[in-house]
Amino acid sequence: MYRELNTPARTIMTPGPVEAEPRVLRAMATPILGQFDPAFTEIMDRVMKMLRDLFQTNNKWAFPIDGTSRSGAEALLCSIIEPGDKVFIPIYGRFGYLLNEICERYGAEVHTIECEWGEVFDPEEVIKEMKRVNPKITAIVHGETSTGQMQPLEEIGKACREQDILFVVDAVASIGGTPVKVDEWYIDGIVGGTQKCLSVPSGMAPITYNERIEKVVQARKKVEKGIETEDDRQNLGNNPFIKSNYFDVSMLQDYWGPRRLNHHTEATSMIYALHEGLRIVLEEGLEERFARHKHHEQALMAGIEAMGLEIYGNLESKLPVVTCVTIPEGIDGESVRKMLLDEFTIEIASSFGPLQGKIWRIGTMGYSCRKENVLFALAGLEAVLIRHDAPIQVGRALQAALDVYNNN
Amino acid sequence: MYRELNTPARTIMTPGPVEAEPRVLRAMATPILGQFDPAFTEIMDRVMKMLRDLFQTNNKWAFPIDGTSRSGAEALLCSIIEPGDKVFIPIYGRFGYLLNEICERYGAEVHTIECEWGEVFDPEEVIKEMKRVNPKITAIVHGETSTGQMQPLEEIGKACREQDILFVVDAVASIGGTPVKVDEWYIDGIVGGTQKCLSVPSGMAPITYNERIEKVVQARKKVEKGIETEDDRQNLGNNPFIKSNYFDVSMLQDYWGPRRLNHHTEATSMIYALHEGLRIVLEEGLEERFARHKHHEQALMAGIEAMGLEIYGNLESKLPVVTCVTIPEGIDGESVRKMLLDEFTIEIASSFGPLQGKIWRIGTMGYSCRKENVLFALAGLEAVLIRHDAPIQVGRALQAALDVYNNN
Repeated sequence: MYRELNTPARTIMTPGPVEAEPRVLRAMATPILGQFDPAFTEIMDRVMKMLRDLFQTNNKWAFPIDGTSRSGAEALLCSIIEPGDKVFIPIYGRFGYLLNEICERYGAEVHTIECEWGEVFDPEEVIKEMKRVNPKITAIVHGETSTGQMQPLEEIGKACREQDILFVVDAVASIGGTPVKVDEWYIDGIVGGTQKCLSVPSGMAPITYNERIEKVVQARKKVEKGIETEDDRQNLGNNPFIKSNYFDVSMLQDYWGPRRLNHHTEATSMIYALHEGLRIVLEEGLEERFARHKHHEQALMAGIEAMGLEIYGNLESKLPVVTCVTIPEGIDGESVRKMLLDEFTIEIASSFGPLQGKIWRIGTMGYSCRKENVLFALAGLEAVLIRHDAPIQVGRALQAALDVYNNN
Repeated sequence: MYRELNTPARTIMTPGPVEAEPRVLRAMATPILGQFDPAFTEIMDRVMKMLRDLFQTNNKWAFPIDGTSRSGAEALLCSIIEPGDKVFIPIYGRFGYLLNEICERYGAEVHTIECEWGEVFDPEEVIKEMKRVNPKITAIVHGETSTGQMQPLEEIGKACREQDILFVVDAVASIGGTPVKVDEWYIDGIVGGTQKCLSVPSGMAPITYNERIEKVVQARKKVEKGIETEDDRQNLGNNPFIKSNYFDVSMLQDYWGPRRLNHHTEATSMIYALHEGLRIVLEEGLEERFARHKHHEQALMAGIEAMGLEIYGNLESKLPVVTCVTIPEGIDGESVRKMLLDEFTIEIASSFGPLQGKIWRIGTMGYSCRKENVLFALAGLEAVLIRHDAPIQVGRALQAALDVYNNN
């Protein structure tokens, strides 16, 4: 009557969610522990420690929001935005619009600049406009999966610190796949994604932030009725409280910190998954992992180009974990994607807004970023394009990819 | 260097998170599918169908919020509360304060009434006050885990419908363990919990709502930039948009509905868990499941009382899945809990606010609600209380529980 789960096998070569590490999937089958069981709070502490290593930061606060990636961006932003605050957002793809959307909803006065999709900003241009706007917060996407581009952040971060602007970064797509140096790049608050380069299922949004953000958050502190103490009532923040209860970082701190003040019931199995995923990433080594992602990207790109297809976007600012491919003139991109999935079990992605129907996006992220996956994706794409009468070079893609693999 | 997960075995007899069904844990190890893979959207559709059966409703909309239980309450409330809206909240425990807190944060004018903890309201009293206040929304907790009490809802729901008030219910603790009849009780919007009577890990918050709420939500519709179409721009809602992007039910509908408009990346493994958990609940049968919970509650209560301990709260309105026990005079409740965990691996709960140090709370929920768990919890509690020199009747608890089991 109620059918059991019976899922097909897939080779997932999208920019997420990607194939989860088998060890992560196994970790989720670990039996539940109570949220205040010392055995569980110790796991929470270890997750915090590993997140600091992942984000390359000495921040005190590093923990996941229990929600999908965008919940982490919303938690960070809504905890620091007070109505009327000026926020500056340079936009170079869809997820910049998402930051804009979140900030507007929480009452910020948002100033944006945009550059052509497929490009990133010259940091000097961003800094110049930021000086003019003089915002409280600058928010930007590090890796734009919608266009496959990656914005250099260090100079902008430095300028933010000099101007005393809070610098908030969306590293959902880049974390764990390419360098993200929170402290070195003067990032005040950042969110990463689990379902991309970490190869942990979607459903958690790791964030970290420094004392500059903590100060803003503490000034808005309001412990909820029913668990507040007399001390909490005496120490209410002077600034407007945070609109969301679920995303109130000042309360989340008290849950993740030594006070262990009850807020939500931590998502036990997802914490197990994140713990295992972080352990695997850190045991591989960040530098080794970034190099591996770069290596498979090179093989994929060589194959795509050998087929005679064009890589979309500026190659100098390309996000190493997503390769966007211009759909050849006259080819129905969705028909190609459907045939890839139906005949080959391979999933690649389309894109959003102005790029819909114009590009495919192929991810090489986390556990999906493997030699056999890259080779199979190239083989499948070539075969499907032949079936679609696309004018491609036949038989060259796999040879080009193998050349990259054999030279390393 | 980075230690692997190595968790101790536990017998979890709290009001959540409780032991997850082993079949649910196994289901989470299922490989990832892409969020728009037809094989995955079919699973999403089946989850919606099973949620309707669980909530005993014909509502079109029934889906989980990707967050812990309180995220579902916040999503429902923030999607219908516009600043200045009157909300009426009868409070009889901690989670009533949480509803209050969420509503206040989103700018509602909240009117509350309170009754003594350990009691529930006479529905007539609620209805009388509701007529005086004339709110847009009445929000109430169905099962208060903090006090182990359950509020009868049908009369209040009927009065809400007659007065054209939106009736929003928190059934986090009761869903799947005791009857919750959404349509029959005139409930307009409701949130359930996964980590309690469903025995699915924490991290999802199933909600359902009817066309009365859908109408309010549609009037506030605003599709985010980057994925909105010309049509969306022409059909902006006239009412203030919803503050939260993550919890915007008008966009979530378009993700869970046939349009499949990208919002978040659905939490794949948690959906597998929820799918399996719902399947198990519905195959057991709702009535059979409620009877099973009632049966184990009776055995537990018989054991507690035979020991000479007092059940806290009004027995007539007792929540069948949580049994609150008054801590005997002179006994350190936390010391008892610690010894139960350390020596017996058994976890029971304390409570919040005015009840801290006054009661223990013992859950009989979902997969944790089993004969051997009830017997072991009674045996452990008796032994630990003897060690604490508590004045209890020795050797009677298990006999009383066995009598209940053997008479059925």
